[in-house]
Amino acid sequence: MKERLLALKEKKYMPKGIKIWNKAKKIIPGGNGLLSKRPDRYLPGLWPTYFKKAKGINIWDLDNNRYIDMAQMGMGSSILGYCNKFVDNKVKKAIRDGVNTTLNSIDEYELAKKILKYNKFADQVKFARGGGEAMSLAVRIARAKSKKDVVAFSGYHGWHDWYLAANLKNKNGLKSHLLPGLSPIGVPKSLSGTVVPFEYNNLKDFKNLNKKKLAAIVIEGCRYFLPNKKFLKEILRVCKRHNICLIIDEITSGWRFTNGGVYSLLNIKPDIVVYGKGLGNGYAISCIVGNKKYMSASDESFMSSTAWTEKVGFAAANATIDFFVKKNVSKHLINNGNLIKKRWIQLANKHNIKLSTSEVSPLCSFFLHYPNNDELYTFFTREMLKYKVIASNSIYLSYAHKMKDIKNYLMLCDKVFKNMSEFIKKKRKINKLKIRYSGFKRLTKG
Amino acid sequence: MKERLLALKEKKYMPKGIKIWNKAKKIIPGGNGLLSKRPDRYLPGLWPTYFKKAKGINIWDLDNNRYIDMAQMGMGSSILGYCNKFVDNKVKKAIRDGVNTTLNSIDEYELAKKILKYNKFADQVKFARGGGEAMSLAVRIARAKSKKDVVAFSGYHGWHDWYLAANLKNKNGLKSHLLPGLSPIGVPKSLSGTVVPFEYNNLKDFKNLNKKKLAAIVIEGCRYFLPNKKFLKEILRVCKRHNICLIIDEITSGWRFTNGGVYSLLNIKPDIVVYGKGLGNGYAISCIVGNKKYMSASDESFMSSTAWTEKVGFAAANATIDFFVKKNVSKHLINNGNLIKKRWIQLANKHNIKLSTSEVSPLCSFFLHYPNNDELYTFFTREMLKYKVIASNSIYLSYAHKMKDIKNYLMLCDKVFKNMSEFIKKKRKINKLKIRYSGFKRLTKG
Repeated sequence: MKERLLALKEKKYMPKGIKIWNKAKKIIPGGNGLLSKRPDRYLPGLWPTYFKKAKGINIWDLDNNRYIDMAQMGMGSSILGYCNKFVDNKVKKAIRDGVNTTLNSIDEYELAKKILKYNKFADQVKFARGGGEAMSLAVRIARAKSKKDVVAFSGYHGWHDWYLAANLKNKNGLKSHLLPGLSPIGVPKSLSGTVVPFEYNNLKDFKNLNKKKLAAIVIEGCRYFLPNKKFLKEILRVCKRHNICLIIDEITSGWRFTNGGVYSLLNIKPDIVVYGKGLGNGYAISCIVGNKKYMSASDESFMSSTAWTEKVGFAAANATIDFFVKKNVSKHLINNGNLIKKRWIQLANKHNIKLSTSEVSPLCSFFLHYPNNDELYTFFTREMLKYKVIASNSIYLSYAHKMKDIKNYLMLCDKVFKNMSEFIKKKRKINKLKIRYSGFKRLTKG
Repeated sequence: MKERLLALKEKKYMPKGIKIWNKAKKIIPGGNGLLSKRPDRYLPGLWPTYFKKAKGINIWDLDNNRYIDMAQMGMGSSILGYCNKFVDNKVKKAIRDGVNTTLNSIDEYELAKKILKYNKFADQVKFARGGGEAMSLAVRIARAKSKKDVVAFSGYHGWHDWYLAANLKNKNGLKSHLLPGLSPIGVPKSLSGTVVPFEYNNLKDFKNLNKKKLAAIVIEGCRYFLPNKKFLKEILRVCKRHNICLIIDEITSGWRFTNGGVYSLLNIKPDIVVYGKGLGNGYAISCIVGNKKYMSASDESFMSSTAWTEKVGFAAANATIDFFVKKNVSKHLINNGNLIKKRWIQLANKHNIKLSTSEVSPLCSFFLHYPNNDELYTFFTREMLKYKVIASNSIYLSYAHKMKDIKNYLMLCDKVFKNMSEFIKKKRKINKLKIRYSGFKRLTKG
């Protein structure tokens, strides 16, 4: 511990991961395939960046430091923890049987049945491998059925043209949903007007939409805050009244609050629900599940990919769902999240820090209320890293986070909040270049 | 063998796979995620449809029949054969280390280096999981760099909006590239005119394009026939003259003819090359590799996905490339393909069948020249299936196809061609409902 503490304080300290990262950026645009795994999002120059191995909530970096992951757990994908034996054994069995043959994998059919079991409103399922990819399928189907083109949305839904087109008319179209000023460069200009954003939980903003042209309304099941009742009621009314496809993006929220989507806890009957991330405990698998009215439209539209039929993704999702349901994982995530949120508030009060928390618990987050928030989040991450804890202001909880891990983490929070309070009071500074870049700007209002 | 022969002849015989398929179609639109794995593409009502396990070129169906795959090998994805030990062991190691963590997989960087080694023209690599998905990345980047929207193409490039938009203006835009009459339903109508098809190897057709508006020209490395010299020369001239991004889709042709793309054998310097299918021996992995001029445009455009950073795909591709290069797999595929093509011609002459073959060998194909081609291909598939061989008129050869397999297959071709000759001469018929549906209509002209 001491060495590590010293290492991070040394001016010239550079993890091996950062050295590789600097080379990787030269041959991979942006350095990797996911914004949220870029070191500058957490701790520029000091983030471990690459892992050698991982197990449970432990991650070993290239310098053989063992960290505890109290942050992203593979951006929410490893919902049961790293190297879950039950899932991995099923995947290994799939590998022994062959992953991609001329014939079909029976696991695809089994998984479809399983997903329908936990989505009673639905009749049919279609699989892809990535979340954004599955969202594109959902939008295609809604447009195919309605013969209309315009889609309204209020969250983050991926990198595809249909979504980024929101910034064509107004470069701030995605401001409150994504990186501010994100450029729609490379998206055909003629898509301008085919997609319109509205603010999450903002009834007035939603009411301003021209409903008649809409093929679909897309909302997230939730991110940090649940949709409020009035907002949701109006969306449901409008969808019914104007025959608009209601798509719930549960890529982040699905298989976290309950067995399936958070929509079922909100008593909504959607037309299409989209799952990704947690569905395969880190293995690439995603799907859309919907009612026959909409899903049948996919018979007319061509959507087909060799990668969608490999067996690993199906086997992983079948096993993940079985484990998730059997172990009542959602309860575990909610209880731990509630405990952490409660304690964060207590500790913030104790150390006189202006802090609030997310409404939701399985992805629990705290929000600071200072002009230099990003500097303070960086401070928090840096101090926690000294204790060999990977931390940010959000935690994607997993089944592998046990009570002793939570308690240990909260004990460290006590120490780091105390230091943070000092840092704020004494108006200390972190070198600007060492401050994290805030990634997606999400709506943090309730 | 006898039992099987009898079973297929029985009127009421139905493989277990078809029974499941009939249920699957009710809960998965189309029954599965890939058109080319649908039983009606081969032998309606009689195709084994699902596999229980696979190894080398063996596939066991749900009725425990063991077949030899002399057809699609996972639609060309399992280029080393099913359950290649070297690749599978590397993947299992990746699984032991954790597949999707908060930190990055070093395999992503290693794979990027490896791919650049075999694509000397290129500076940067970006990964996805599916082939069509990677094509979308390439098109986005070309549009971002050129600030133009129109893309010209001459092959099959996936299911995304950018591509299917070709059928918006003219419902036959994709006629010679895809299913005839394929509907662009669900694709925003405003994309009309953003993409224009030209016929592969048709210089005149290419010359008719309005070059000034083009962001990119997309061609396949090859499918059944190589691009002819004049056609290629003109494309290269136009790309240079009008500063158009040349994208080579090597999803089908890559890692088959040579270590990397067929473009290198044609002496072309492309801007972006796209790989998928064979790259991971059946595991989901794809990439685009390109020069800095274009790839750097991806810094401005948002393209990001959690699924793109899981470790299985990277580990599989790293191992597949190592094995492919070490064992000189391309030579193996080419030699066996040449042998098969030569023998098909000899046998066709012997049995008086009107038949020609593809120019290319690793994906070798024969083409019949009769008004009832589909009926005859169905006959061929049905007769071969009686001998427990999965066959169509195309073979994606793999490293697991050994000389004894090829010889055995050709011996059976002799028998089946003889019967086919009889079938043609006596004007026998197959029940219309039992005839295969032809899927993608490709250009079969040289």
